[in-house]
Amino acid sequence: MKITVLRLGHRIFRDQRLTTHCALVVRTFGANEIIYTGEKDSEMENSVKDVVKRWGGPFKIKHEKSWKPILKNWKGKIIHLTMYGINLDDCIKKIPKENLLIIIGGEKVPSELYQLSDFNIAIENQPHSEVAALAILLDKLKLKKKFKNPKIKIIPQKKGKKLVSK
Amino acid sequence: MKITVLRLGHRIFRDQRLTTHCALVVRTFGANEIIYTGEKDSEMENSVKDVVKRWGGPFKIKHEKSWKPILKNWKGKIIHLTMYGINLDDCIKKIPKENLLIIIGGEKVPSELYQLSDFNIAIENQPHSEVAALAILLDKLKLKKKFKNPKIKIIPQKKGKKLVSK
Repeated sequence: MKITVLRLGHRIFRDQRLTTHCALVVRTFGANEIIYTGEKDSEMENSVKDVVKRWGGPFKIKHEKSWKPILKNWKGKIIHLTMYGINLDDCIKKIPKENLLIIIGGEKVPSELYQLSDFNIAIENQPHSEVAALAILLDKLKLKKKFKNPKIKIIPQKKGKKLVSK
Repeated sequence: MKITVLRLGHRIFRDQRLTTHCALVVRTFGANEIIYTGEKDSEMENSVKDVVKRWGGPFKIKHEKSWKPILKNWKGKIIHLTMYGINLDDCIKKIPKENLLIIIGGEKVPSELYQLSDFNIAIENQPHSEVAALAILLDKLKLKKKFKNPKIKIIPQKKGKKLVSK
């Protein structure tokens, strides 16, 4: 199952940390790549690539100019996360276990995108965070998590921190 | 069950949107309030209060100068969310259904805080996002969600948006 996340309308000044958090969530919860549209942001890409280098991969981040060709060429179902959609608990069983493109918005999502998506899904019909919505959806999809060739790894502790280098 | 979230070390320039997202996540997933330390940020507080006014409450956001008295005076268990901790799946059954203070970090978390917390919990032992970690924990605690006196409400849609005013 290939899972790609598409982040719309990135703005360097306003969204840098939020998009970075989105990318790290995508990686941590077992999806393969994040594509973002909006402003190309090499600094943000490099900070994500740096995490992948140290904590393990594979994981891809890339910028695309336009979201339309991505949706048009996608072989699989398209999920759009929006607070206006059907609540996840009411549709999670209908989500097929196949290639998925998961879209998270930027400031203004074009209305066409609601039509082109197979599922418009809300993680609660309340305003909160695309980072949170993405994390909860990916967590509930229970994807396999593999982090190959990490340079560092955490040994979970009840108190304090333990990091080991490989 | 009273759930308060404590966000450490807010910095106006760097963290404004992330802390806002944290606050909205806390509200959406049924906790009662967020307290933050670091820089007092009235603009951020007002944006959260504005959401509460339109989408329903009750919900509190407040600033405190120091985290230590908050922990010292807390009547209940203290959970610190950290990627270095015990994975949530390995300890969720031990979390008591009573008053909880849930702490999420800022840039540098003092080592004392790991000692003062009853549970240091990781949502995956990988770097990602405090917004995501908070959302997943609160979602799994299955708190009651009540939004009293909302001015607007979403009617979930398969395609498009439907908002009703009350």
